[in-house]
Amino acid sequence: MTKIELVRIDSTGKKNIEDAVCEEAPLTIYLEGKELLTLLCSPNDLKELCIGFLYSSRLIKSIDDIKNIIIDRQNWNANIELNKKMGNNELIFKRLYTSGCGKGTIFYNAHDRVHKIKIIDNARISSEKIVALMDCFQASSLGFKETGGVHSAALSSGDDILVFKEDIGRHNALDKVIGEALVKNLNMKDSIILTSGRISSEIISKAESARASFLISRSAPTDQAIKLAKELNLTLIGFVRGKRMNVYTANERVT
Amino acid sequence: MTKIELVRIDSTGKKNIEDAVCEEAPLTIYLEGKELLTLLCSPNDLKELCIGFLYSSRLIKSIDDIKNIIIDRQNWNANIELNKKMGNNELIFKRLYTSGCGKGTIFYNAHDRVHKIKIIDNARISSEKIVALMDCFQASSLGFKETGGVHSAALSSGDDILVFKEDIGRHNALDKVIGEALVKNLNMKDSIILTSGRISSEIISKAESARASFLISRSAPTDQAIKLAKELNLTLIGFVRGKRMNVYTANERVT
Repeated sequence: MTKIELVRIDSTGKKNIEDAVCEEAPLTIYLEGKELLTLLCSPNDLKELCIGFLYSSRLIKSIDDIKNIIIDRQNWNANIELNKKMGNNELIFKRLYTSGCGKGTIFYNAHDRVHKIKIIDNARISSEKIVALMDCFQASSLGFKETGGVHSAALSSGDDILVFKEDIGRHNALDKVIGEALVKNLNMKDSIILTSGRISSEIISKAESARASFLISRSAPTDQAIKLAKELNLTLIGFVRGKRMNVYTANERVT
Repeated sequence: MTKIELVRIDSTGKKNIEDAVCEEAPLTIYLEGKELLTLLCSPNDLKELCIGFLYSSRLIKSIDDIKNIIIDRQNWNANIELNKKMGNNELIFKRLYTSGCGKGTIFYNAHDRVHKIKIIDNARISSEKIVALMDCFQASSLGFKETGGVHSAALSSGDDILVFKEDIGRHNALDKVIGEALVKNLNMKDSIILTSGRISSEIISKAESARASFLISRSAPTDQAIKLAKELNLTLIGFVRGKRMNVYTANERVT
């Protein structure tokens, strides 16, 4: 968050004011010395972002795969070393490279090859609890209140919000949550992920990597997100507004 | 737009309903037979998306650089042939590849090398006209009204909305607008671009490629977007809501 000067126009005319805007940084990730990609992100929790990104992109299987991460905030570089050399380096880079800019479609290259693990659990949550969690989630979104320019994501056990992150990108916000959960060794299995953003198949894929049972958003899902959630038996809930919500898949988990 | 069945929960209880959701498709672009990237997008105006994407990424200089585009809707491929072989193919691919998934940071590789052309014009618009344009823009957003899951972007001369597009990605929506403007040979210089989405430096870079003088959004800009807009002398207006708006840069164009 930073302060800038601007001209506000309203019914009373033009005036110079100062206002808060969200910051943006281009973080270039180097893996084993090789440039992987650049993420436009909010310049906080960059280690967690890197860890969550590698994990949700299936480039690492656990945090133990990471030997070292050095964040160079002067040049906006993250230098990551792994404990074991990656199997097929070329494949991994190709996989990432063909993933899109624009919206990030890593999933279409990485995920298609991965066996989808259907979620089988006894996790349940009441609609009242969902409403309460979403209220708490939104109350926590201080960056959004100040700048209107960030998304938020959170991890919840059902009772509490365990991790809460904001970022100018909704994918990054979720990766930061996953990254911090890994750093703190929090249990993500059967958990609830909350997000302020729209749900594409890629967001579902990230929730899958965390082995969450619920993905809950204020916003809309796409048809492919719903299709993938159904295949995974993930409970996908959208448009949580006031006491109202849409349960798209696996609605037996909502009591 | 497609229809799906879901469970709606509200104060009256649970009920099965049918609702509209936005569609998502993974369009893989092949340039000269080589896989370039995959965009997650709404499956309409795909030719315009390709043209706009190549243009706003500075991979082509005009629509005349394109010899042929074939869209294969069965496999979601776009096969693009160019009229002249690209200078340094490797560089172009590297440039794209290092651009990020997540938010798309093509700009940080492509744009940094490009000489920034400062906008010098006599374009002016009144704040009343901005309010009226934004009202018209939002009234046109039928996909958003139906699904809540798409962004919109438009090109305006100041009087009329010349091109209007929607997409699940805000980058794609703008690329579709630029693509259609190129196809129809519309003048984009000194024009107005409207968007429903948040403004990162990459969105400014796309507006720059169109040589627009105004970028107007309902949402928030980042600090780097404001910085780049200032360097370009582009008039950046955010948070247009009701009769109120924030003019971040080059406010002398707003009368």
